[in-house]
Amino acid sequence: MNYPSLNKEYHTLKESYANRGMNLENLINETNKYYIDKDIAIIYKKPTPIGINKVSYKENKQVIREAYFKSPSTLDYNGIYKGYYIDFDAKETNNKTSFPLLNIHEHQILHMRRIIKHGGITFLIIKMCNNYFLFPGEKLLIFIDNNERKSIPYQYIKENSYEIKEGYRPALDYIKAVDSLIKENKNEN
Amino acid sequence: MNYPSLNKEYHTLKESYANRGMNLENLINETNKYYIDKDIAIIYKKPTPIGINKVSYKENKQVIREAYFKSPSTLDYNGIYKGYYIDFDAKETNNKTSFPLLNIHEHQILHMRRIIKHGGITFLIIKMCNNYFLFPGEKLLIFIDNNERKSIPYQYIKENSYEIKEGYRPALDYIKAVDSLIKENKNEN
Repeated sequence: MNYPSLNKEYHTLKESYANRGMNLENLINETNKYYIDKDIAIIYKKPTPIGINKVSYKENKQVIREAYFKSPSTLDYNGIYKGYYIDFDAKETNNKTSFPLLNIHEHQILHMRRIIKHGGITFLIIKMCNNYFLFPGEKLLIFIDNNERKSIPYQYIKENSYEIKEGYRPALDYIKAVDSLIKENKNEN
Repeated sequence: MNYPSLNKEYHTLKESYANRGMNLENLINETNKYYIDKDIAIIYKKPTPIGINKVSYKENKQVIREAYFKSPSTLDYNGIYKGYYIDFDAKETNNKTSFPLLNIHEHQILHMRRIIKHGGITFLIIKMCNNYFLFPGEKLLIFIDNNERKSIPYQYIKENSYEIKEGYRPALDYIKAVDSLIKENKNEN
């Protein structure tokens, strides 16, 4: 699970450093800000869900004194693009030969099934072997429904994804791949 | 702002008690669960955003030791219904004559403008004078753009909303009002 670290939460990008040292989540967050600024798409990362055990008051304000991270039951990012409901997650793996399915929770897969059924666009953005892929939910489900394997071979991901190139602004221009996915879905229906 | 209280977070509904004592947020959460179970709509409440100051480790698990609530820049609920992107917030007021606009942040209003522009369905569910209203984003913006007032008269809300009746299951069947709003938007375009 991608829990937010302190550094990530308070990270601010100095433009002169471009994308240096940005992890996948930061690249996507910067890209989403760009899309909102340019009125291209309205997509946000959902806050990480937490369970609160203790709260105290300091100068009349609530301060959380004990809390823990909960597993999300949906995907991290959602919003709207060209009238379409968009719902996705970002996953990184250091594994060079296959993508471990442990990275995706059972209820997240169920969520993706539901989104597809209701006419939404859902996918994973996967960083693997220094490449970025938009891996459509449909292809993920086909794999899961037809394999006993606990990981997806790199070759399958590569052949069934749209590649996304890292850039300057936006940092990770994934919306072109979304356009291709929308087009592909239309041709299939 | 509606911060989650401990009671709210851990509230579980015993069916025999029906909706007794449920606040607006709980009514909507129960209704959303019902919609997901019945495969009607896939709508979730976003977690409340928090800023984390201190984290410690206990039995190898991260425990948040100091954190604070942040203001949300979007609305609390979003998801998909009949292929439409749905985005809304729930607001309660004890005021009997008008709805104070202080209840809605400036950036939430901007967010609603963007959602409408991109073809989404956005609204407020308002509980006021013991009635529930689905108040369309379009009507809210018309009011804001044409008035200097800091509150919306009850009469304006009543005349420009779809009323929602409280029930047993689902607790607050707002999706019928969404159907009416979709129909209205179609007729206007």
